[in-house]
Amino acid sequence: MAGFTPSLENLIDKLAALPSVGRKSAQRLAFHLLGMSDEAVNSFIESILNARSSVHRCSICCNFTDNDICEICASKERDKSVICVVEDPRDVMAFEKTHEYSGLYHVLHGVISPMNDVSPEDICIKELISRLGSDEIKEVIMATNPTVEGEATAMYISKLIKPLGVEVSRLAYGVPVGADLEYADEFTLIRAIEGRKNI
Amino acid sequence: MAGFTPSLENLIDKLAALPSVGRKSAQRLAFHLLGMSDEAVNSFIESILNARSSVHRCSICCNFTDNDICEICASKERDKSVICVVEDPRDVMAFEKTHEYSGLYHVLHGVISPMNDVSPEDICIKELISRLGSDEIKEVIMATNPTVEGEATAMYISKLIKPLGVEVSRLAYGVPVGADLEYADEFTLIRAIEGRKNI
Repeated sequence: MAGFTPSLENLIDKLAALPSVGRKSAQRLAFHLLGMSDEAVNSFIESILNARSSVHRCSICCNFTDNDICEICASKERDKSVICVVEDPRDVMAFEKTHEYSGLYHVLHGVISPMNDVSPEDICIKELISRLGSDEIKEVIMATNPTVEGEATAMYISKLIKPLGVEVSRLAYGVPVGADLEYADEFTLIRAIEGRKNI
Repeated sequence: MAGFTPSLENLIDKLAALPSVGRKSAQRLAFHLLGMSDEAVNSFIESILNARSSVHRCSICCNFTDNDICEICASKERDKSVICVVEDPRDVMAFEKTHEYSGLYHVLHGVISPMNDVSPEDICIKELISRLGSDEIKEVIMATNPTVEGEATAMYISKLIKPLGVEVSRLAYGVPVGADLEYADEFTLIRAIEGRKNI
């Protein structure tokens, strides 16, 4: 006997193919799914299908929403003169949690990455550029991840935006608050020294 | 804005309720499920429903199978005089991987646990006892986990089996092969000394 029974093996394979699910977790999940009540499994499957059918991209900022325009773009409370450009809807959540930023967002849904065959056309750059036509937008904050690809994407987009007369900024680099300098990598330390401020 | 859009939040909640899936993993899984092709999602859902409809307990050993009797119970190669009693179908896989044990199994699907409201009737003990009627079975190896509840379950079952004239044994306790004694807990070391053998 090489493994579990075929239909169970198939389910485990499918679960193990999900991101951050290893073989052992996939087994645990499969046994859990087998043990769930019919009602619970149906409601689980429904939630997948329901999310897939109702969630789509906001027609303005490309963030996920159930409506045509997301809550943030539709809100009258937000500062409409600044757009924070992020890679992923989860990054929007990260900024929202600070309760400090009150401007708008634009979600790229990825970064330019020739290695992974992602070109500028594959992410929501043209949607961003088309938002800059009005005079309302004064500044775009590039908040892509501080990785090589995030950096390159920020550079690429800033070159497209600058000719339009809109200010472009980039998140500050430096040591994270509460971190131990001993464990900071040299690139972060270099950036922290370069970006030092008078106190 | 407190969180993601409602249908997405609902999906994340459902995923986070699965075992060993935290909030962050649930988010990652939800985004992955949103990004999958319709075909891939349907095949994923099908594998859940298919496993749930075809997988059931072997009518002899209670292990999971797609047929009436599992491969191991149906095999003519196995030693039918010994039954290894385990808590979970995954434990069967663990023993099968050793390629050393060639007897039969019996899967309890749990352990007796008054704290979690699991009584002897809730696990497959009566199915085990009914297998011992024939003269064929000579020995039952109690291979429940080396935990308090696994131990208590092994004791409980051995008391039921002994009057039937079948030999009952328990897995050996001791230090795991390749382990560092420095990090072994005291209970394991005590059991390893108690169970020492002449060499």
